[in-house]
Amino acid sequence: MSTDSDVSTASRAAVITLLTDFGTADYFVGAMKGVILTINRSATIVDITHEIPPQDIESGAFTLLTCYRDFPDGTIHVAVVDPGVGSSRRAIVVRAGSQNGIDFHCFVGPDNGLFSYIYDREPACEVFHATAAEYFRPSPSSTFHGRDVFAPAAAALSKGIDPQALGARITDYVRLPPLSPTADDTGQLHGRIIHIDHFGNCITNFTQADLPGSQPFKLTVNGRVIETLRDFFTDEHGSPEEIFAIWGSAGFLEIAINRASAAKLLRAHRGDPVILESPANG
Amino acid sequence: MSTDSDVSTASRAAVITLLTDFGTADYFVGAMKGVILTINRSATIVDITHEIPPQDIESGAFTLLTCYRDFPDGTIHVAVVDPGVGSSRRAIVVRAGSQNGIDFHCFVGPDNGLFSYIYDREPACEVFHATAAEYFRPSPSSTFHGRDVFAPAAAALSKGIDPQALGARITDYVRLPPLSPTADDTGQLHGRIIHIDHFGNCITNFTQADLPGSQPFKLTVNGRVIETLRDFFTDEHGSPEEIFAIWGSAGFLEIAINRASAAKLLRAHRGDPVILESPANG
Amino acid sequence: MSTDSDVSTASRAAVITLLTDFGTADYFVGAMKGVILTINRSATIVDITHEIPPQDIESGAFTLLTCYRDFPDGTIHVAVVDPGVGSSRRAIVVRAGSQNGIDFHCFVGPDNGLFSYIYDREPACEVFHATAAEYFRPSPSSTFHGRDVFAPAAAALSKGIDPQALGARITDYVRLPPLSPTADDTGQLHGRIIHIDHFGNCITNFTQADLPGSQPFKLTVNGRVIETLRDFFTDEHGSPEEIFAIWGSAGFLEIAINRASAAKLLRAHRGDPVILESPANG
Repeated sequence: MSTDSDVSTASRAAVITLLTDFGTADYFVGAMKGVILTINRSATIVDITHEIPPQDIESGAFTLLTCYRDFPDGTIHVAVVDPGVGSSRRAIVVRAGSQNGIDFHCFVGPDNGLFSYIYDREPACEVFHATAAEYFRPSPSSTFHGRDVFAPAAAALSKGIDPQALGARITDYVRLPPLSPTADDTGQLHGRIIHIDHFGNCITNFTQADLPGSQPFKLTVNGRVIETLRDFFTDEHGSPEEIFAIWGSAGFLEIAINRASAAKLLRAHRGDPVILESPANG
Repeated sequence: MSTDSDVSTASRAAVITLLTDFGTADYFVGAMKGVILTINRSATIVDITHEIPPQDIESGAFTLLTCYRDFPDGTIHVAVVDPGVGSSRRAIVVRAGSQNGIDFHCFVGPDNGLFSYIYDREPACEVFHATAAEYFRPSPSSTFHGRDVFAPAAAALSKGIDPQALGARITDYVRLPPLSPTADDTGQLHGRIIHIDHFGNCITNFTQADLPGSQPFKLTVNGRVIETLRDFFTDEHGSPEEIFAIWGSAGFLEIAINRASAAKLLRAHRGDPVILESPANG
Repeated sequence: MSTDSDVSTASRAAVITLLTDFGTADYFVGAMKGVILTINRSATIVDITHEIPPQDIESGAFTLLTCYRDFPDGTIHVAVVDPGVGSSRRAIVVRAGSQNGIDFHCFVGPDNGLFSYIYDREPACEVFHATAAEYFRPSPSSTFHGRDVFAPAAAALSKGIDPQALGARITDYVRLPPLSPTADDTGQLHGRIIHIDHFGNCITNFTQADLPGSQPFKLTVNGRVIETLRDFFTDEHGSPEEIFAIWGSAGFLEIAINRASAAKLLRAHRGDPVILESPANG
């Protein structure tokens, strides 16, 4: 890890992703990319999304969870959904994955729960309180740590700087409540809609652990009952208007209609409760 | 084509474009890019757009047509507007252009007509039914072939894999009706609005073959008659509110107003009929 | 600067930014990127934004100002907000910064004031009327100079072509009125809202020169008076609904509310007048 040629290789290969609630109409995202490229001209920067609803930490945490593993080993993920910017909330660097130097991802952002679902999913996470100002921009603004703290810290990591060079390890980092549903004593599972996608599909927090195999089930959301599980959206054997459940590509149970918005039909919003009943739980 | 150094050169140079109806608020686009970079870290990925109207195949086909030729020789275009994902619709790879190994483009996506206008435009197209699962992600989901089938197939092509390694050549691929207008026996040409752009300009499917030179003409759309052809948007000799026709940058006749939305004024939608009368056709 | 290996180095390192009012739903942005990559495959292309309000030159000029300095030395910024495309308005290349070959930025776009705030900010600017058609696409369209003139000119610059190879130096380039507020004889400073960001923060054109230190002040906008200056958005000592001023990350005074839209509360629009009274000016 310490020879010049290794560092050069690491540097050339670096992938840095960005996930924010900044939108794309302002200078915010461009500024972050400029800062990264000024420090590491050969970084490959990939936008995950900049359309997290403003200051919605849970939504940002979910979207990050659904795709970080699709990126190459060693990718650095910068996530900025940061209502507390400039206050006493800490900046952190998370190193997730195996300790052998391969099969790991890094995360840079505010310590407000944004990386909670990474902590829940990854077997080994080390969290560092990023305080080493020599890796930040001089005199960081109190309103734009994305540009002045997180982007330069990520660029430093992309050049081979070790996460622990950025600050001391901490264990009292902020965590959101777990993503998983809860069972009541009647055997009903209480979940919720954790995301509504571009097509109006409603993603719940039920996973195959909650509904294994192909047993019958009853899903209730906003007064509507769903008992059909489909394998794909277009089903020649189903009615076209039928609302159905489907295992989504992120591993969660989704509620969908073919070629229309389930969210619109159900008047569903993120956070709405969804109840699952099935023999496995009852 | 087969030496190591050639493959390495090809790999370094690869450009992969993405065109989808996924929007940019979800994890979909990020996931596709992560998969591509995991397979070919040196690919240059370019977004054409992710704002094709949901499941609007014809709109995706048009937008792809208007810009694929602006990309370097050898570019691989991934297009995903895919209402039939997971069903029996085929995944395909298209190789378009000359057979001498230069001046060609590849296309990867569903066999639902999305590449129709490429077939119409390019002198030589070979279409392959992509079935070689070793080039896909293991256990592809039935709802996100963009990530699990098309992105990894494109990444494989970008590393020098030959299109025919992905599957057998087919000739019964799906085609949309041609983009061209139709003539009736009175000499009127019947076209339509095929796209409305960000500025509200209405792009028709008339080309210079339908209205050669500078002869007089009459264009009728939504009860409105247009008889002026301008060379550019700002015309000091024309009235500012005037609605006019103009040859657009994609080679099609557009209906426009200077500094305002023609679509709004005309209450126009994609698909609305447009009639062209001119001495050339009458 | 003239050896092959130097040119190769320059080429490899080139960063080209794009700022337009094109939106991201059409083929426009993809086409520009394709043209650039066809000429310089190794260029790193970064979107600043494509959501400048259609034909709003002042808004484009402001957004460019706020972030161009965050990019590496030598970056080439293509900006296209161009209501006069195809008319007699000139295409220009601007070289801004020191004359020693380091610490400079280039700008390519229409001569309509879009680079005004760069002229105001940079100590040394040279402006060239880009007329050298050998660096443009053959037969440029009259409606899309972004693709046919500005993108190829920027790609040429990114390969080491000198700005003055593109055309003659001019001094009568178009300038917008300066961004700075004006004082009346009562000591009031008359500014305006120059931008409303994604979060609804209202950015004014007051800088620390107008309100130095921590003296008391009175800011009046749309009948509302603001006398509080905060250091960051979340302030445990302030009331959550309070409207306040804050020094923004671009160096301008902003009007904000914690976790809500100040623009909505104030019914503010870009251009609305803002009056600043303080002992420093009175």
